[in-house]
Amino acid sequence: MMNRLLFKTFIIAHILCCYGAVYAQGNQHPLIFISKSDGSLINKNLSEYPLLNTSYEEAKKIADKALTEKMDVPVPKDPAGGYTHERHTNNYKEMYNAGLVYTITGDKKYADFVIKMLLIYAELIPTLKNHPESKPRSPGKLFWQPLNDANWIVYSAVAYDCVYDYASADERKKITDGAFRPMCDFITTENHYMFNLIHNHGVWACAAVGMTGLVIGDNNLVQEALYGSDKDGKSGFIAQLDKLFSPDGYYTEGPYYTRYALLPFYLFAEALQNKMPQLKIFERRNQILKKAVYAALQQTNTNGAFFPVNDDIKDKSYMTPEMVFAIDIAFAEYGQDADLLSIVTKQKKVLLNSSGLKVAEAIKNYKGALPEFPYKSVEYTDGPAGKQGGITLLRTGDDKNLTTVLFKYASHGLSHGHYDELNMLLYDDGNEILQDYGSARFLNVEQKDGGRYLPENKSFAEQTIAHNTLTVDETSQFGENEEIASEYHSDKWFSSLGGKVQVVSAKDSNAYKGIKLQRTLFLIKKEKNQKPICIDVIKVSSPKEHQYDLPFWYKGQFIAASFKYNAFTETQKPLGNKNGYQYIWNEAEGKSDNNTGALTILNGNSYYTITTTADAATQFNFLRTGASDPNFNLRSETGFLIRKNGKEQLFACVIEPHGVFNGVTEISSGSQSSINEIKTLINNDEYTGIKIIFKNKEEWTVLVANANNRMDSKHTLDVQGSSFSWNGPYTVLTNGKTFK
Amino acid sequence: MMNRLLFKTFIIAHILCCYGAVYAQGNQHPLIFISKSDGSLINKNLSEYPLLNTSYEEAKKIADKALTEKMDVPVPKDPAGGYTHERHTNNYKEMYNAGLVYTITGDKKYADFVIKMLLIYAELIPTLKNHPESKPRSPGKLFWQPLNDANWIVYSAVAYDCVYDYASADERKKITDGAFRPMCDFITTENHYMFNLIHNHGVWACAAVGMTGLVIGDNNLVQEALYGSDKDGKSGFIAQLDKLFSPDGYYTEGPYYTRYALLPFYLFAEALQNKMPQLKIFERRNQILKKAVYAALQQTNTNGAFFPVNDDIKDKSYMTPEMVFAIDIAFAEYGQDADLLSIVTKQKKVLLNSSGLKVAEAIKNYKGALPEFPYKSVEYTDGPAGKQGGITLLRTGDDKNLTTVLFKYASHGLSHGHYDELNMLLYDDGNEILQDYGSARFLNVEQKDGGRYLPENKSFAEQTIAHNTLTVDETSQFGENEEIASEYHSDKWFSSLGGKVQVVSAKDSNAYKGIKLQRTLFLIKKEKNQKPICIDVIKVSSPKEHQYDLPFWYKGQFIAASFKYNAFTETQKPLGNKNGYQYIWNEAEGKSDNNTGALTILNGNSYYTITTTADAATQFNFLRTGASDPNFNLRSETGFLIRKNGKEQLFACVIEPHGVFNGVTEISSGSQSSINEIKTLINNDEYTGIKIIFKNKEEWTVLVANANNRMDSKHTLDVQGSSFSWNGPYTVLTNGKTFK
Repeated sequence: MMNRLLFKTFIIAHILCCYGAVYAQGNQHPLIFISKSDGSLINKNLSEYPLLNTSYEEAKKIADKALTEKMDVPVPKDPAGGYTHERHTNNYKEMYNAGLVYTITGDKKYADFVIKMLLIYAELIPTLKNHPESKPRSPGKLFWQPLNDANWIVYSAVAYDCVYDYASADERKKITDGAFRPMCDFITTENHYMFNLIHNHGVWACAAVGMTGLVIGDNNLVQEALYGSDKDGKSGFIAQLDKLFSPDGYYTEGPYYTRYALLPFYLFAEALQNKMPQLKIFERRNQILKKAVYAALQQTNTNGAFFPVNDDIKDKSYMTPEMVFAIDIAFAEYGQDADLLSIVTKQKKVLLNSSGLKVAEAIKNYKGALPEFPYKSVEYTDGPAGKQGGITLLRTGDDKNLTTVLFKYASHGLSHGHYDELNMLLYDDGNEILQDYGSARFLNVEQKDGGRYLPENKSFAEQTIAHNTLTVDETSQFGENEEIASEYHSDKWFSSLGGKVQVVSAKDSNAYKGIKLQRTLFLIKKEKNQKPICIDVIKVSSPKEHQYDLPFWYKGQFIAASFKYNAFTETQKPLGNKNGYQYIWNEAEGKSDNNTGALTILNGNSYYTITTTADAATQFNFLRTGASDPNFNLRSETGFLIRKNGKEQLFACVIEPHGVFNGVTEISSGSQSSINEIKTLINNDEYTGIKIIFKNKEEWTVLVANANNRMDSKHTLDVQGSSFSWNGPYTVLTNGKTFK
Repeated sequence: MMNRLLFKTFIIAHILCCYGAVYAQGNQHPLIFISKSDGSLINKNLSEYPLLNTSYEEAKKIADKALTEKMDVPVPKDPAGGYTHERHTNNYKEMYNAGLVYTITGDKKYADFVIKMLLIYAELIPTLKNHPESKPRSPGKLFWQPLNDANWIVYSAVAYDCVYDYASADERKKITDGAFRPMCDFITTENHYMFNLIHNHGVWACAAVGMTGLVIGDNNLVQEALYGSDKDGKSGFIAQLDKLFSPDGYYTEGPYYTRYALLPFYLFAEALQNKMPQLKIFERRNQILKKAVYAALQQTNTNGAFFPVNDDIKDKSYMTPEMVFAIDIAFAEYGQDADLLSIVTKQKKVLLNSSGLKVAEAIKNYKGALPEFPYKSVEYTDGPAGKQGGITLLRTGDDKNLTTVLFKYASHGLSHGHYDELNMLLYDDGNEILQDYGSARFLNVEQKDGGRYLPENKSFAEQTIAHNTLTVDETSQFGENEEIASEYHSDKWFSSLGGKVQVVSAKDSNAYKGIKLQRTLFLIKKEKNQKPICIDVIKVSSPKEHQYDLPFWYKGQFIAASFKYNAFTETQKPLGNKNGYQYIWNEAEGKSDNNTGALTILNGNSYYTITTTADAATQFNFLRTGASDPNFNLRSETGFLIRKNGKEQLFACVIEPHGVFNGVTEISSGSQSSINEIKTLINNDEYTGIKIIFKNKEEWTVLVANANNRMDSKHTLDVQGSSFSWNGPYTVLTNGKTFK
């Protein structure tokens, strides 16, 4: 990190830049999002670029509809999903679209609409106390939470910018003093805490205040937005850019909030670039915003859905409006990369500004088929300096049949973090196979607590047992304490990406006091036309006896288990009584009598089997969420639990896609797993080794070095009568031959 | 029905026809599906018609792959989903495709392949005893059930026809005597029962035997296929055409099996048309096969999925291979109706014969956008004479936003029938909202009983409680006796389709002894841009006290209930112990304290609320399938149960789609029902009347005549201080004004 003196100098230099910039271009309107000449150019090119035209038509439709309806700026009353909430949300969208249509067409009726509505807001806002549905710590004004107020400001500022020159001086004074200044004051003072937060709420707050400052020519607001209330750079937009992303663009709250933060990041950055180009905001931290958008896209499934790391609502994908902003502006600012364009064609929409114009033009003029977004195996560090663990994505297969294993060993993820160090997820053929529950929340659904996070988010979804990682003694990691969790992260032990054998291993010794965890995940594709298999080895050791629970929360229909189980057909009870266990119905219990247990599910057009080592004491449970849930706030999801007790334990699993199922053409084949047995060869401080015996007699040996992770290390190991020697921290052998 | 003498004469005339026909064209090969000239014409037009070309390429790919692989004709051993089952299935598909590719290209390697494989079958088949996985009553040979053997014969007969002329006389003798004759003998003698069945299995069996007869020139086989083993016309293909369909094309087993039967119906009909055109098979019963395919298509959701009436697997849609056969041939034989073509473009496939050629040509040459298939409100009678009840589909909205209410008051549906008289289903916006479970079966999944119907099909899926209709005293209709159920059907009381107020009413007094049931369903779309609402009124009366249970099995996420309920959060028990109740977890129980109870769910982009009358004794339960299911054979589905006791009862419900939800763009509005209260005005032998009071104070009055269903009847009624007079068996008034 930059030392303190250097940082101060840098800030002062920046502040000087900014003042200069705002004065220099302060009077040109509109400029923060779209300029008059952008508007004319768009108008001229509507018939040229289909995507531009449909986007314009959509905006015009919204604006035209608004013009014909009775304008309503109600006194705020309802929570999210309720009338006044939705009305104010629609109002800013209408103003935003009308402002753009005015700038593109010059048709004054749209400007009149925006001014009229803003004048009504300017009368209403000064009369408002805090929103009746507010939480005391973070009051809202037009909405139940200040975050939505920031949304309102961001979009309305763009609209105001569009009509600024058209409005009379008197109207401008009324709007500026009656609507925007009080709203910004409310953010910077009443919500001082949020405004100075290094968190997505803070990004929205700074963008709102900064964009307002740029529109109304108030440098003080711009400086506060860039450098925080105290203008010392400890908070504010620049600090958010520096601290929320790792050097490679991973956003510490996780992909769901990356998406949400990228809109204000990109929109304010675009505004700054237009008004204060000398700030070179898009170059900040070696183009951190470019890295951020690509990292966000890599963290999606092939259907565009963001991986549900930390709080996440699974509806969210790269189809969301936020990603239209981020991708279009990134395309225009960062070298017009054609890899982004296929996503835009799925979004079916571009921004109505110069970025969107460039995107629409590029798509129209692209020769041949657009390349699919290049999903790849990739890993990201976490933390501002990239030193707080990270996540790894192991991938194989082409776009349609892509298999992705996600492994999380990152920092806690601020207030939206889950207690899920060493969690893993599996996606295959576009489907979610091994899932993270995401968050317990029905966004904007009035009856579900106004769309807020539900109590079950904290009591279930954040808990360790809700994740595909080890829970010790039915407690969650870090004693379920956010502050403690935020001090720690797991550490990558080694990884190798891109070959036939891809692997990542990480260790953790803080999630549970006195317990050492190491998880190693392989994704191996033996032959080009074969499906890959995932090998999952978790080593746990402690000086004391514990209960270790490893659930796999799966999506799909249970087909069969290899072991005998007893289903609780007459009475169902929760699996436990605390730390998330109380939300889980224990549907069945079983044990294996042959050292291996397997569960097969059907998901989409493929079967999946989880096979695991199991001694006589290993217990299996079939899980379903929904117990202790008096308001039915949880989705009904299914899991497979492997429970072992002891000091040292090894969970060696193979997760294997296999066979084909097609209900339309009545094809089903390969519904049986190809694996016969998994044996533990060795498991000590130095080495972990397992043998996988396939039904076709093929044998794979998997060896992991636990004490030396150097890639140039040399290892020799005699185990169960066989002798192995290899280089680097792992090796996989097929029928005795190294397989790389 | 035709009288007996007339029928005999008719049969003799037919038999004469047939003999003549077979002799006349007996030696031309191929002819049953494709002719040499068809093949040449297809070859010539491949580059002209894209759909023809992709279909050909697909067939060629299958054939080419088969040619490069080791041929395997294994001794039958496995159940469905197992290797030998799938191998023999693939074998006939490979022969079928290779035979067609040979006929199209003249490339002999494809003919050699077919002949070689048939010769191996000719050696194997005579050595085979019954399949080891057979059921004693209906043994299979190559497969576990004779139905699959019939499948094999049908496809293989087409292949044999294609290579018949190319094969040497010696090869022909071997194949005919070693493969086809024994297989046909096996069907007609060992499976004499199935062969003479008026049932989809019988259709397949007759098509198999008849098509073989046409290929090998054996008139006796053709006659048996057409007129049954005794050639008296009581069974066989003609009788199947006459008895399985109602006069308007409804297939008595329900849409799932319509689809399955349409393939042999159309394929054998096409073969008969080609070999024995004077039979005019496509004209039979005023073109019953035309009516059948349109009726089948009307019985699909907008995504093409067949409505799950009776046994049904929900994967099945008009995208299935069977519907490719039926639609292409229907298009060619019945006037080339462009309404069918949009479905073909979704199927992305045409038949490789003259029908497919015509379809591909029509699509290529169609000017403008193809019309969507015209879904409409429609009703079908059931039974050969159309006198065994029927089903009604009330529909409103355009293709994308189509709302469909299905009402079943048909006959039992043979061996695949469910005990579900007066069942209703709701589809909206392409989604299943109120569902029928369908059947408990995982088609072809080896671990799930080899893909057979699972025990839970009979014990749960067929039971009355698994359906959205009234269950009395926790027993199923007709004492769950198929024979008794087959004697009865409900009766339509009245209906009116197509207007703003659509309605259907039916009565039943046999499903439960001594109990009179009448259900009336309205689908009302008040304004063009409003969502429709469904009003559901069930009147039940009995001289004795009973418990009446009305479940609504819904798809979607529970959002809220208007009444207080107690969720069984700590212990879950089944709802009952027999007749399907044992499979249902009782998740929660509640009562209303204001005479109305409502449950709101979220499904897709819309909310749905079921509002119902409820007195202090009315009990509500939240249901989930899965209890008493030791092998997890049931899907987990949710339901809302309304329970009332008494002699006379009225269940008056409104099912209302409302609001908008979009998780991508974060839109949620209108999540609250618009209804405040439902009141019963009157409920006696003559009239049932309810009043629906909306939150906006609007009041609807719904009146149904229970004793006089004449459309020209006049009614006057004084009830609760108001006086009503109207014509016809129902009226709906909005704020006192008749609304039609």
